[in-house]
Amino acid sequence: MDTQIVLPESQVAIHSPRLFCIGRNYAAHAAEMKSPMPEIPMVFLKPSTALIRNNGVVELPLQSDEVHHEVELVVVIGKKGKHINESQAADYVEGYAVGLDMTARDIQAKAKKKGHPWSVAKGFDTFAPLGDFVPKSAVNDPQNLGIKLLINGVTRQSGNTRDMHFSVHELIAYCSTIFTLLPGDLIYTGTPEGVGPVHDGDKLEASIEGMPSLSVTARR
Amino acid sequence: MDTQIVLPESQVAIHSPRLFCIGRNYAAHAAEMKSPMPEIPMVFLKPSTALIRNNGVVELPLQSDEVHHEVELVVVIGKKGKHINESQAADYVEGYAVGLDMTARDIQAKAKKKGHPWSVAKGFDTFAPLGDFVPKSAVNDPQNLGIKLLINGVTRQSGNTRDMHFSVHELIAYCSTIFTLLPGDLIYTGTPEGVGPVHDGDKLEASIEGMPSLSVTARR
Repeated sequence: MDTQIVLPESQVAIHSPRLFCIGRNYAAHAAEMKSPMPEIPMVFLKPSTALIRNNGVVELPLQSDEVHHEVELVVVIGKKGKHINESQAADYVEGYAVGLDMTARDIQAKAKKKGHPWSVAKGFDTFAPLGDFVPKSAVNDPQNLGIKLLINGVTRQSGNTRDMHFSVHELIAYCSTIFTLLPGDLIYTGTPEGVGPVHDGDKLEASIEGMPSLSVTARR
Repeated sequence: MDTQIVLPESQVAIHSPRLFCIGRNYAAHAAEMKSPMPEIPMVFLKPSTALIRNNGVVELPLQSDEVHHEVELVVVIGKKGKHINESQAADYVEGYAVGLDMTARDIQAKAKKKGHPWSVAKGFDTFAPLGDFVPKSAVNDPQNLGIKLLINGVTRQSGNTRDMHFSVHELIAYCSTIFTLLPGDLIYTGTPEGVGPVHDGDKLEASIEGMPSLSVTARR
């Protein structure tokens, strides 16, 4: 498959990671959203311009009055694959990081009601903060990791990846039935309960045990 | 903003174009879908692995019994921009091509009903065929172009870009209020009426006046 775009007037080289994200993957979060658990993983995409790294700034867009934090375990794919068997999924993992799936909840609520896509609510610039990776060898069991979010030093989310409804390996297998996964692809695996609004000046600290924490500031 | 992913164990270089797509942008198509026209553009994303080029093969996935063709004018962005004014939008266009927004209509219908994201229905591998570009200088008026789709030589869609609800320049301005647009970004601008199912072996020929046509074959 040729995925290189050749323009008549210029050659454009693009270096952009791909972000696959999973919605509603912890029962207690689905419950707080008053939403049923999905029968199959709910997948959505964020554009590469949503990515920011440690010590970055989350820009709260003017279009939303309610941007929520969602702390998540992020998987980075190390090997190209399609129709990956769950039992082989570990071979396709390069490493892990903590990330935030920032969500314009008011825009998302309207979209859900109308059956519209989620790309705007989830896709604003800076809406996918991402910490530094650890190699998979540093993680004993991705399904037994404490995961936390603090705002201005106060704990807002505190969970464990053992409560994921679809495991990391199930998510890799499922996503690969739809999309060919590529090295560098990121999968944000869903958030535990405790999501809530973020305000101008808030300092967010996201952490998962055994990996570098992620610190970002929200600005309007 | 640092969007480079540095892994502890390897350096991963990724060359992947970004695909922004617009839903329901022609009134007659909204009507055939029994859907109201949106008040603001409906934006969704496809992953780079959806791209195929002229003479490629559209793989009809086993998960869907109803994959539809949607022929569209595709804009390629030539310059980085955020909050682009509609009156300046033309400066950000590099060129145009004809494209197809392949859609698993059965999967999309379920997603819409449940308020789920559209990424799966729209994002399968090979679901974004794309023709060769012409530079913008070759297009006199992007809002007055005949646009057509034939299957096995029979016309299925025949419209004109003058019937777009949001113009190319309005779409660029709108998208850039959410996402920083980058050189090489593609915007699929929505389809006129006449969408319908595609079957194993079908030969699809998509064309827009003044640009190279796009020929792909569907395979199951």
